[in-house]
Amino acid sequence: MFRPSPFLDDKMIEHLSRYVPVLDWGRTYDRNALSNDMIAAVIVTIMLIPQSLAYALLAGLPPEAGIYASIAPIILYAIFGTSKALAVGPVAVVSLLTASAIGQVAEQGTAGYAVAALTLAFLSGGFLVLMGVFRLGFLANFLSHPVIAGFITASGILIATSQLKHILGVSASGHTLPEMLGSIFAHLSQINWITVVLGVTATGFLFWVRKNLKPTLKRLGASALLADILTKAGPVAAVVATTLAVWGFGLDTQGVKIVGAVPQSLPPLTLPGFSPDLLGALLVPAILISVIGFVESVSVAQTLAAKKRQRINPDQELIGLGAANLGAAFTGGYPVTGGFSRSVVNFDAGAETPAAGIFTAIGLAIAAMALTPLVYYLPNATLAATIIVAVLSLVDLSILKKTWAYSRGDFAAVAATIFLTLMLGVEIGVASGVAISVLLHLYKTSRPHVAEVGLVPGTQHFRNIHRHSVETDPALVSLRVDESLYFVNARFLEDLIQKRVTNGCAVRNVVLIFSAVNEVDYSALESLEAINHRLKDMGVGLHLSEVKGPVMDRLKRSHFLDDLNGRVFLSQYDAWEALAGDIVPKAAE
Amino acid sequence: MFRPSPFLDDKMIEHLSRYVPVLDWGRTYDRNALSNDMIAAVIVTIMLIPQSLAYALLAGLPPEAGIYASIAPIILYAIFGTSKALAVGPVAVVSLLTASAIGQVAEQGTAGYAVAALTLAFLSGGFLVLMGVFRLGFLANFLSHPVIAGFITASGILIATSQLKHILGVSASGHTLPEMLGSIFAHLSQINWITVVLGVTATGFLFWVRKNLKPTLKRLGASALLADILTKAGPVAAVVATTLAVWGFGLDTQGVKIVGAVPQSLPPLTLPGFSPDLLGALLVPAILISVIGFVESVSVAQTLAAKKRQRINPDQELIGLGAANLGAAFTGGYPVTGGFSRSVVNFDAGAETPAAGIFTAIGLAIAAMALTPLVYYLPNATLAATIIVAVLSLVDLSILKKTWAYSRGDFAAVAATIFLTLMLGVEIGVASGVAISVLLHLYKTSRPHVAEVGLVPGTQHFRNIHRHSVETDPALVSLRVDESLYFVNARFLEDLIQKRVTNGCAVRNVVLIFSAVNEVDYSALESLEAINHRLKDMGVGLHLSEVKGPVMDRLKRSHFLDDLNGRVFLSQYDAWEALAGDIVPKAAE
Repeated sequence: MFRPSPFLDDKMIEHLSRYVPVLDWGRTYDRNALSNDMIAAVIVTIMLIPQSLAYALLAGLPPEAGIYASIAPIILYAIFGTSKALAVGPVAVVSLLTASAIGQVAEQGTAGYAVAALTLAFLSGGFLVLMGVFRLGFLANFLSHPVIAGFITASGILIATSQLKHILGVSASGHTLPEMLGSIFAHLSQINWITVVLGVTATGFLFWVRKNLKPTLKRLGASALLADILTKAGPVAAVVATTLAVWGFGLDTQGVKIVGAVPQSLPPLTLPGFSPDLLGALLVPAILISVIGFVESVSVAQTLAAKKRQRINPDQELIGLGAANLGAAFTGGYPVTGGFSRSVVNFDAGAETPAAGIFTAIGLAIAAMALTPLVYYLPNATLAATIIVAVLSLVDLSILKKTWAYSRGDFAAVAATIFLTLMLGVEIGVASGVAISVLLHLYKTSRPHVAEVGLVPGTQHFRNIHRHSVETDPALVSLRVDESLYFVNARFLEDLIQKRVTNGCAVRNVVLIFSAVNEVDYSALESLEAINHRLKDMGVGLHLSEVKGPVMDRLKRSHFLDDLNGRVFLSQYDAWEALAGDIVPKAAE
Repeated sequence: MFRPSPFLDDKMIEHLSRYVPVLDWGRTYDRNALSNDMIAAVIVTIMLIPQSLAYALLAGLPPEAGIYASIAPIILYAIFGTSKALAVGPVAVVSLLTASAIGQVAEQGTAGYAVAALTLAFLSGGFLVLMGVFRLGFLANFLSHPVIAGFITASGILIATSQLKHILGVSASGHTLPEMLGSIFAHLSQINWITVVLGVTATGFLFWVRKNLKPTLKRLGASALLADILTKAGPVAAVVATTLAVWGFGLDTQGVKIVGAVPQSLPPLTLPGFSPDLLGALLVPAILISVIGFVESVSVAQTLAAKKRQRINPDQELIGLGAANLGAAFTGGYPVTGGFSRSVVNFDAGAETPAAGIFTAIGLAIAAMALTPLVYYLPNATLAATIIVAVLSLVDLSILKKTWAYSRGDFAAVAATIFLTLMLGVEIGVASGVAISVLLHLYKTSRPHVAEVGLVPGTQHFRNIHRHSVETDPALVSLRVDESLYFVNARFLEDLIQKRVTNGCAVRNVVLIFSAVNEVDYSALESLEAINHRLKDMGVGLHLSEVKGPVMDRLKRSHFLDDLNGRVFLSQYDAWEALAGDIVPKAAE
């Protein structure tokens, strides 16, 4: 009988595979999955070549950085990540955040700029791995959906605006909408009309492909599959056509800016910078990039996993994305995350396992070694056109309408995030959005619903005296508290009871019904003590009813129950029976 | 018949008196209230003279600033405030905050320092009035009780430490515990032994008075009233004795620092500084001082009001305290608030209306004009001794023990507030405390309790399947959500349902019981939509039951109910009857 060596012990592998998922799916990998993964990899590779160059341009980095950032990170995510379909690499929003962060510590085009990008990827990767090890994935939830939606929309507008300079052939700069537009206007005299023609044509063509090509082809009798593949090849067609135009007519000698020489090599080994000044300056942006990248990636991964009734593990995802970013830091890349469009293409093309990612990485490595001379004459305007068309699909101002209809608080959070991101930049925009969401939540819970209740005649049920015909006793006030009690609303309850009791001189007992109170924090405990003492000073008893088990356990650890000038009743009906005297029927108002 | 002129129209006065409470109590003021208020005023005035000088010393201001800050503010609060017993003026914690804030913009002893103090009072007063006009008093609730307790304790330690230099007769500076202690050690060679003898004797005497005088006097046969008055006169006795000692032995010529010449005048008319730089630098400290002062004042006022079954109006209190601070800004004072010790003395002495405050102000004005030469030889060491003895009663480290027993989260907030206030100063300490409280609250609500329930046989009640013997159907999962759904916990619910459904392959329907859900914000709505779509992709229905009215109204404003792959049931029993098929009795685990 074969006995596995201790190093291959099944249980051990099962344990390890929680942290290195490749050990799990790798053992059952078969020929069928292999062929599906290979097909998906070819499709994704073709799509990623122009996209990687374009996002590097957006980040202000040399074009090869975009390709390098797609090789090692993909492989590392395939080993450590839990999604079967997620494709990791440079994405638009993270590229914008990268440009904004490293633009503050180094000049674009210098060696320091590239080192800053590596350092940012290193910090971001380290932060993600730490979050994963300490299972802090839930922290990403502090970004509310309206804030994320507003931020993504505003980022799309900023990114599209940032590419206008490449379409116009002018040199401009800036990280906010007014800065960018101002800078473009200031440099408008540099405009290169040949670049404008190329850029506008490419943009128009790509929009047309995206909107109209598929229905047109279908009307002409093409099969759905062919129509789909031709539509996805649109950016490649634009790249080929404009590259040939520049090469054929020698447009690069007439002021059209081109990609130029890209080194033919595998990703180099690189080192991020470790100077304390640089690390300190990039720490906060790195945290921001990590959290935003993680939120984007996890929502894509969850959506795709659900389609096949699979699950992802958010804490392990942190480790997968962290490893990918550390990989980028040491192989000439910049911060990466799971991208929406490439992941969907990968999934639709039939990728079954993360091996598809590994094959994509091999395809890109071949491209990096063999195909880079082909993009020498590729105009930057074409890359800008592909970015503009891609990011404008991120811009969704309907979120303003939807949140307005649903809740004014959520609307305020979206509107503020969009406005502040456009006007003051990405960091301030997203930070303000988070602060506003939290403050609005605190405000909403600061005035909990408290209903004064009476007995429904002939039953043991208690209902709001303002909505139902119930029996009440003028000497007994029963208040049902519909929210957990904590520091933000503790004093509200003090005021409310003080007001109710000083209004009715006949009040002799107050019962607080705690059926909906899931927590009483120390501030609320002190407020309850204050209420108890004040009511005692007025000669009024304070009682509790229907207190949940965990809340009661907490209260028993304090002196509150010993000092309570009243009793704790299991049910409100018990309290009523013990305390009610002269009962008055009360009709609903 | 007498017809009141339109200017005295009763209704109009009633309306106005909401904003100017003096119009209310002033109309019914009688001889009895007058004599009670006068007696209280005499007692409070005697107590306030040394206290005002001492707190001015603590704030780094000339001694007369403390007296001026007690005159106009008291009168303005009497007109606009709603508490009958609150005494407004300089207090220890606000004096410390003032020293810390204006120490950053001006050198102590310069004219700029006094102007900065006026400006701080002006900003603080303006901010309080604005908060009151917009009814934003609830914002003060964002300071949790443990944070306030920790902050007050740490402030007490900082204040006592800051006075050590006066007891030792050395010049030292600093705003954190390490800075203060370091500075004292560095200047230890300057020590003046006569000052030390005076200061230590005064401190020891005052501690003895506070702890032992009253029982001793009673044992010796004194009446309770006499013992009480003699105990309260302790600081006055220390002032008189040490002043005579300095004058009699000429100790001021031997290095003992004295109060010196204090101008004999009514409060002067002064103007705060209006330069944008100064206003900008003091804005954040002014907000901090306003909020902390307001919290301290309101809790004192509420406690005293409750003893007489009276009420205060927190939003009107903001206006009262704001007016008091604006008064201080234009009459040579510095930021003020309602003080604990002086208010309690005022209340115990029988003050019936805010007129007691006005009489106190008159008493202090007489003192400012006539009595200031008497304190010429008063040593600073005595004032420091009165401060040390007063503030050490604020230091209450038992809050650490109490919160540790009650809740680790609250303990963490207290401990961090105390530690950071001592080590990094008052601003950072209190800001960190607030941030920690909010984060802890978000963390606690980020993982809401969700119970899977089954039917209690023979009833229409549903209970946790892990705690009770209930009937379940393997194809039907019923989950009771015990918390409002909002952005922080929205994704938690997504993960939880995904996990539950992918674990049980037979699941065909999921019911979410919303009986404890008081709110569904836009993030949670999107999470519910995502859950619905993912379950649909898996062929699983999603249903809701027991949705509250306001939540249902909101959901109807979105497309969620149209897209829902299931139904909304009025009660969970309706859902069970419609969806349950093969019922399996399930014993509690």
